[in-house]
Amino acid sequence: MPRKKPIHKILEAKSIAVVGASSNPTKIGHAILKNLLISGFEGKLYAVNPHSKEILGVKCYPSVLDIKGRVDSAIIAVPASVVKDVVKQCAKKGIKGLIVISGGFKEVGNVKEEEELAKICDKHNMAMIGPNCLGVVNMNKHIDSIFLPTYKMKRPKLGDISFITQSGAVGSVILDLLGESDLGVSKFISYGNAAHVDESNLLAYLREDDQTKVIAMYIEGIKNGRRFYEELKKTTKVKPVIVLKAGRGSLASKAAKSHTGSLAGDYKIFSSMLRQAGAIEARNMEELFDLAKIFLQPLPQGKRILVVTNGGGEGVLTVDAIEEDKLELSELSKKTIGKLKRKFPKHVVIGNPLDLTGDADAERYRVALENVVNEKGIDAIIVITLFQTAGLSSEVVEDIMAISNTTDKTLVVVASGGEYTRTLMKILESYGIPTYESPSDAVNAIAKAHWYYQKRKN
Amino acid sequence: MPRKKPIHKILEAKSIAVVGASSNPTKIGHAILKNLLISGFEGKLYAVNPHSKEILGVKCYPSVLDIKGRVDSAIIAVPASVVKDVVKQCAKKGIKGLIVISGGFKEVGNVKEEEELAKICDKHNMAMIGPNCLGVVNMNKHIDSIFLPTYKMKRPKLGDISFITQSGAVGSVILDLLGESDLGVSKFISYGNAAHVDESNLLAYLREDDQTKVIAMYIEGIKNGRRFYEELKKTTKVKPVIVLKAGRGSLASKAAKSHTGSLAGDYKIFSSMLRQAGAIEARNMEELFDLAKIFLQPLPQGKRILVVTNGGGEGVLTVDAIEEDKLELSELSKKTIGKLKRKFPKHVVIGNPLDLTGDADAERYRVALENVVNEKGIDAIIVITLFQTAGLSSEVVEDIMAISNTTDKTLVVVASGGEYTRTLMKILESYGIPTYESPSDAVNAIAKAHWYYQKRKN
Repeated sequence: MPRKKPIHKILEAKSIAVVGASSNPTKIGHAILKNLLISGFEGKLYAVNPHSKEILGVKCYPSVLDIKGRVDSAIIAVPASVVKDVVKQCAKKGIKGLIVISGGFKEVGNVKEEEELAKICDKHNMAMIGPNCLGVVNMNKHIDSIFLPTYKMKRPKLGDISFITQSGAVGSVILDLLGESDLGVSKFISYGNAAHVDESNLLAYLREDDQTKVIAMYIEGIKNGRRFYEELKKTTKVKPVIVLKAGRGSLASKAAKSHTGSLAGDYKIFSSMLRQAGAIEARNMEELFDLAKIFLQPLPQGKRILVVTNGGGEGVLTVDAIEEDKLELSELSKKTIGKLKRKFPKHVVIGNPLDLTGDADAERYRVALENVVNEKGIDAIIVITLFQTAGLSSEVVEDIMAISNTTDKTLVVVASGGEYTRTLMKILESYGIPTYESPSDAVNAIAKAHWYYQKRKN
Repeated sequence: MPRKKPIHKILEAKSIAVVGASSNPTKIGHAILKNLLISGFEGKLYAVNPHSKEILGVKCYPSVLDIKGRVDSAIIAVPASVVKDVVKQCAKKGIKGLIVISGGFKEVGNVKEEEELAKICDKHNMAMIGPNCLGVVNMNKHIDSIFLPTYKMKRPKLGDISFITQSGAVGSVILDLLGESDLGVSKFISYGNAAHVDESNLLAYLREDDQTKVIAMYIEGIKNGRRFYEELKKTTKVKPVIVLKAGRGSLASKAAKSHTGSLAGDYKIFSSMLRQAGAIEARNMEELFDLAKIFLQPLPQGKRILVVTNGGGEGVLTVDAIEEDKLELSELSKKTIGKLKRKFPKHVVIGNPLDLTGDADAERYRVALENVVNEKGIDAIIVITLFQTAGLSSEVVEDIMAISNTTDKTLVVVASGGEYTRTLMKILESYGIPTYESPSDAVNAIAKAHWYYQKRKN
């Protein structure tokens, strides 16, 4: 049994050295230092660069060996040719956590150089993320080592979802989309070539991380299928794991190989392995997000869905999706039907969909939701709010948030549209209510969450 | 053979009366008049309301019969109970085009009242859109009769795509999304209960409309399947038609019935009918948009796709989608490979995907695209631009636009992210270059466009 890699030295570092720090704003080593500063890292920060005395107000040392105090982690952004020397120096200094941003290893054929780095880390009981990666973000510890400028890529808010990504490019898109939405993030880890710390190690780490409630992964290839399966199985017993696997076909595995140097393997086997391990598979990036956020809600314990809408057409589209995903339409009790009939004008369709019709205002939504939210026989509620109608005011958003606190059913909101709609959806999302642009996305997320509920129960 | 309904009197009206116009800003009859005014309608505008003399500066008449000049079309927003009288007055006045916004007909069981309206229209050779609809937009004639406030729902730009929607709610989402994107629109028609003018009539109208290059439809049920098939078949021979059918399952058809009073019919039959007629089916609203805009590009005449990317991971996801949609990866000629090898640094992967890698700048994209854009053996090019990287500047957008003019291959761009990315994507889209948030969406659109190309050729 191999020793546990000290990943916490990277993600929970109290002191960080940026090796290759630069005063030139176009350099990666500059952006990393700058982002650590503006993310509000509260620990000790060191810059390492033989040609500077101070960068961005941070004292600069010729090498890590010249630093006096303890250093938990080093973020290395130097040319590939000198990475090995830096890693050796880190070992000597007693630094246990490394992030190697630099590319130029296995992905371009330099397999041996990469293996040597891993050997040094094993020998000295260090943990290394990378090489050829984007770095990490730990929102809980204000650590942001990502080297991309904040004006091009927004940063997320603090929350419960952690992301693991093999590809840096995909990772940057994930981070940017997270920043744009109001989904909260706990950890973000871009692990690149996985020369040392791999997807299985990261799963094990996040499984035990109390601040992570949901894990979302982007994977191209895995190093050890058996080990990954075991870690995954253990993890899905305590928290949901959503996996987006790229390199599914034979053409794509070829492309993945030239990208991070990893073999994609047989997709069908991988896919059924995921299912068996209780993980949820996403087919593309949108679905990765759609599935991750459904788990911010209570799990749907059954298949019975109620649809509340102010648009008949959207209601029909939702029912289509419910049928296609093999979920069911819930039925309202006679008592509730009677109550709603007394409260609503005649043209409101008291059924499922509960069609409040195009002239529905926030009040009609409130009455409808208050009366159904604790109805037996409903496992999840999909609330469709078309804000394009004249009568529906933004008040409905606050009502939905308030009502969501009074129930343990899954509650999601569907709306799509321009800026007005998007602004309101972000408010809901920041409150932990997942929002979806289309009925089929919402239904799919609920179906997969219910599958996970069943799987975990058995 | 029934007489052709004078739909042009509605969509190309030179004089419009708003019946039920109101000075109360919360009333539909107010919003319609206001939107006609701010959309810049250049024809004659009349308000009809027995209680006012002037509304929003427009002269008001007690009834249409009191208007002196010719009136092409009347937009009717009065209670259901008086609609019939108004329609009769319109007939007497010689008005040939009607839009009945008012609900309260077949969708709530008042079948007979609705049929009577249609009979009056037939008798007097009028065309009626509705009842229970949102109205129409003709961007070419500055006609906007939609009653939803512009702050809640943006309006689109002038362009080549026309939309037909049965559901008003879905229509309002479509319009809002169109306004938010920079896709250009020619006509938008919400036809509601289809008591008189139906989907087949509208198809025939748009087929002959030179300003419409692509037709996108949202349908719940159709009135006459055979007739629809014939019109569809004729139309797809001259321009692409994309159809989103709601009410696919048996549960959903029930919901559709209580919504617009139409029967959804057997979905499988409908679906294969669409294929046979050469129409392209969309499974949800996003796909309706994704497919509509691909036709702004030259049709892909073959299956060979080249992927150009600055993100390896996104490249792999694209290849996955290409394989899953049964398209092919194109091969670059030896000559081009040699040329690119000489021009690019060693770590650039000259293959397919052509991976320009994370440090690619706009210049590297320009060189790559200029060298491949007229290469034989490529039918479509997917350009992935991850703007989250530090090196890629917005210049690449202008380069892509310029290069798109030098080729007759299909060219699309994939990028997703926050505001920065979205702004750049809108610039591309307003230039007629379709953009997609995920590789699989782009590949799916190309695959369907190629299917249409084949179908039309044979």
